[in-house]
Amino acid sequence: MRIEALTNTMVSEELDAFIVTNNANVFYFTGSISEGVLIIQTESEPLLLAPRLNYSVALDQAKGVSVKPYTRANMIEKIYQKCDNEKIQRIGFDELTLKTYQTLNDLLKTKLEPKIDLIWNMRKIKQEEEISLMRKASKLADIGMKAGQEAMKEGVGENVIAAEIAYAMRKEGAEDYAFPFIVASGPRSAYPHSGVTDRKLKLGDFITIDMGAKYHGYCTDLTRTFIVGHASEKQEKIYQTVLEANTTAFNYIIEDAKCSEVDKVARDIITRKGFGEYFIHGLGHGVGLEVHEPPSMSQNSDEKLSNGNTVTNEPGIYIHGFGGVRVEDTVLVSNNRPESLTQFPKNIDDIIV
Amino acid sequence: MRIEALTNTMVSEELDAFIVTNNANVFYFTGSISEGVLIIQTESEPLLLAPRLNYSVALDQAKGVSVKPYTRANMIEKIYQKCDNEKIQRIGFDELTLKTYQTLNDLLKTKLEPKIDLIWNMRKIKQEEEISLMRKASKLADIGMKAGQEAMKEGVGENVIAAEIAYAMRKEGAEDYAFPFIVASGPRSAYPHSGVTDRKLKLGDFITIDMGAKYHGYCTDLTRTFIVGHASEKQEKIYQTVLEANTTAFNYIIEDAKCSEVDKVARDIITRKGFGEYFIHGLGHGVGLEVHEPPSMSQNSDEKLSNGNTVTNEPGIYIHGFGGVRVEDTVLVSNNRPESLTQFPKNIDDIIV
Repeated sequence: MRIEALTNTMVSEELDAFIVTNNANVFYFTGSISEGVLIIQTESEPLLLAPRLNYSVALDQAKGVSVKPYTRANMIEKIYQKCDNEKIQRIGFDELTLKTYQTLNDLLKTKLEPKIDLIWNMRKIKQEEEISLMRKASKLADIGMKAGQEAMKEGVGENVIAAEIAYAMRKEGAEDYAFPFIVASGPRSAYPHSGVTDRKLKLGDFITIDMGAKYHGYCTDLTRTFIVGHASEKQEKIYQTVLEANTTAFNYIIEDAKCSEVDKVARDIITRKGFGEYFIHGLGHGVGLEVHEPPSMSQNSDEKLSNGNTVTNEPGIYIHGFGGVRVEDTVLVSNNRPESLTQFPKNIDDIIV
Repeated sequence: MRIEALTNTMVSEELDAFIVTNNANVFYFTGSISEGVLIIQTESEPLLLAPRLNYSVALDQAKGVSVKPYTRANMIEKIYQKCDNEKIQRIGFDELTLKTYQTLNDLLKTKLEPKIDLIWNMRKIKQEEEISLMRKASKLADIGMKAGQEAMKEGVGENVIAAEIAYAMRKEGAEDYAFPFIVASGPRSAYPHSGVTDRKLKLGDFITIDMGAKYHGYCTDLTRTFIVGHASEKQEKIYQTVLEANTTAFNYIIEDAKCSEVDKVARDIITRKGFGEYFIHGLGHGVGLEVHEPPSMSQNSDEKLSNGNTVTNEPGIYIHGFGGVRVEDTVLVSNNRPESLTQFPKNIDDIIV
């Protein structure tokens, strides 16, 4: 079905072939985790070239395509054999490494054209079965966050909190995390991307947990900042500002909203409270088979939201040397309304541990 | 020190500038997890361009470089400003996306040259402090494998075993896993790269666990195949063949050995036992800040081993529909001798659970 839909678009775009190498795209079109190179042509059957290592898994999982193995030494040759054909005048691709692009472009008569947007236009609109997997992934993230929260107390290491999150999510059925955990405590909470260390919690720390579960290929993305023991006045002001930005922007995540304007709703609140310079990233991003997808929910985005989009809503304030706060949910646009897939509590009383 | 060493190589290669974008390389040269673009020049001080999001972490962590922030919108311009200079005639780079390469190449007077090998020549030879971190990461992997083994019994899901591994490793100090876990049970053990599902163990299953820990940036890589309950004659023959290939090849992992010949030692054993066609990948790969690094320990490799190399030794047999076995350790070449950094037991009595 999905291959057919892309083929129809290819016809209207006058593309004769499409080379798909992004792993998530290969999974999206075939259902196989094999990775490899999927070649879709308007005039012949689709072919999945699977790395020799993953040929068995491709044979068992890939639907609607024929499957052949390749080795690193003959990959280019196999692509070339399938694409060097008089009927093929124009070839689109999603992603190619510089080297593969240069080699193929030199070999083939036709020029390769970057056309990943045609696939993003499909992947951005989640179908019912995809939404159902993202609901499950979001539930697993909520479970992980709860386990992390329960482990928080003075003297506990960031790595121990990450251990509890990983354990709870996996035990309930997560196949993986959606991206490496962020457990950022104390001054480290000023780093939006901090990784995990063995730093131990202190009274009065901010601690930001940014994590997601993966379920049947689908990701979710959830952040909460907690405060250990008691919040100072400044901490409370920062937290409430971020929370207000999050809850207010949420209502603007609807069909036809401009992404840049949703970002602006959150940014204006943070700016009015005097923290504008500390909100150093966009409001959010699409999420699905990958954790960062279109649409971009940032100031420079020219995209609009549609029903079926799943995006993050994650305002933050980061003060170097002091600490930071981020509150993030994964939100579905559905029937012209926003619906939060992640549902972990976020009032200030909920996050003081 | 490392930047200085690369600069010396640049002088002898007549390169005036080097653009480093690979995250592990940025960490290797600066000690920062900030990612970004490191620009090293023979005639001026090194500059780390950090994504705005990671500017604070770069300021706190990056050593021996000045640090400036960039946004997605001005990244190319910032690189251009630093590299468009009459003194700069030749520029090397490690990795660039197709788009960044094309844009920069059009802007700059000089042609960009792929020179990642100059960095691999450094990274391949692990220094004492790197080896010490890999020893710790290997110990954490051994601990994780033990926890996974203890959870194995009929009816337990692959995801539950993965949960125990993640928990144990992180609790003991792992900052992350080195790569997504592989827990492949029953017929799924025939997939070298299988991910993790909720399939439940059955009596007589093979179950392959391929995992590694990450510690202060450094990875390790460890695989064991277990057998649930009792081994059939065929299972035992396959297991012993792979084990013999692993333990025999181990002794050939020494200074000056040709990587292709070490692969051949293992491959010949497996072939003599009649399973040659089922050993569908190379014997191993380098491991360090990334889990797949040079040198390649494969049939087509033209590399030789040196003291300070850390490589995997991972023969396997995979029979589609039946199952598979892989036995893997991370091995250091040190004082002309092999030393296994991972030390989990691997005799057949050790792996029947």
